[in-house]
Amino acid sequence: MDALKNRIVTDGRILKGDILKVDSFLNHQIDVAFLNEIGTAFKERFKDCEVTKIMTIEASGIAVACATSQFFNYCPVVFAKKGNAANMSDDAYHAPLHSYTRGADFVISVSRDYLSKEDKLLIMDDFLANGEALKAMISVAQQAGCQIVGCGTVIEKAYQPGGEMIRNKGIRVESLARIKSMSVENGIEFCQ
Amino acid sequence: MDALKNRIVTDGRILKGDILKVDSFLNHQIDVAFLNEIGTAFKERFKDCEVTKIMTIEASGIAVACATSQFFNYCPVVFAKKGNAANMSDDAYHAPLHSYTRGADFVISVSRDYLSKEDKLLIMDDFLANGEALKAMISVAQQAGCQIVGCGTVIEKAYQPGGEMIRNKGIRVESLARIKSMSVENGIEFCQ
Repeated sequence: MDALKNRIVTDGRILKGDILKVDSFLNHQIDVAFLNEIGTAFKERFKDCEVTKIMTIEASGIAVACATSQFFNYCPVVFAKKGNAANMSDDAYHAPLHSYTRGADFVISVSRDYLSKEDKLLIMDDFLANGEALKAMISVAQQAGCQIVGCGTVIEKAYQPGGEMIRNKGIRVESLARIKSMSVENGIEFCQ
Repeated sequence: MDALKNRIVTDGRILKGDILKVDSFLNHQIDVAFLNEIGTAFKERFKDCEVTKIMTIEASGIAVACATSQFFNYCPVVFAKKGNAANMSDDAYHAPLHSYTRGADFVISVSRDYLSKEDKLLIMDDFLANGEALKAMISVAQQAGCQIVGCGTVIEKAYQPGGEMIRNKGIRVESLARIKSMSVENGIEFCQ
């Protein structure tokens, strides 16, 4: 998605520690009109998959997933919660998640009420790097018996192992911008 | 907003501990088409306020805020983060937040890059009960010198002190459904 690559180059900032900050439009401040373009791009890639539900994970995935839902007949979005809040049902699917960003281990939870064997599920997130979040959501989806049509992520650090790990499970992964290499000194090079 | 009240009565579940679960459409599974109706209702209430930015807090507020943005010329949404992630800039506004739901204390953070004195800010959240989240966001907005046009929440537990506390600060609060009383035995009674 060229508009996304341009936006990353224009507005993204590379910080030490392999951090790409895109928080001016994607995951802190949100450009809602641009998210609709992102949703359109996901529709193009998954248009033949009869998606009936989108699963994502709090917090940054929610805006992406809701924008994308509009292009899949406003299918329901369900977002996995991290940890166990007092108002989270015990009747939930769980999976472990290690967050490299936060340097902590979580359990993610999705209520059993909102996933079923009838769901043709698109799993979404803003970033794909080590693949921990997708792996946890895939576990939850498999526990529920959902048909996973694929994973859609906005930005993939293709030089990190997550994308290959998920694709090696036989699960389709579509990322709108795939970063081949990135450094403070040399900037960003995209795949292809 | 009658459609919302009806939806709460139809799909909400009252649990012990003063919990209203609306996670089938608002804060776990999300009905994106219905959120657009909610956004329309907020537009009606704040249409004369020249809103230029919406602030909310992760996680449940994000979907509401993004849906609402569409009706305010796709103004930027910025969501406050809880805790301090490794990729959160130190150059941020902070405020303390006690979460009754999670029984924990957080610090919320918003980057200084995304709030300014020029902003006419609408502060949003899904629920208003004790008002802790709104209070923390108001503190952040005041540190940044924003003009707060008001607070918009989807569901207000009007029998709890948050709404009155915020209104007593001279800040406008609009809630689309205000609950006067609620119990497992007697169900929900709305204000008005």
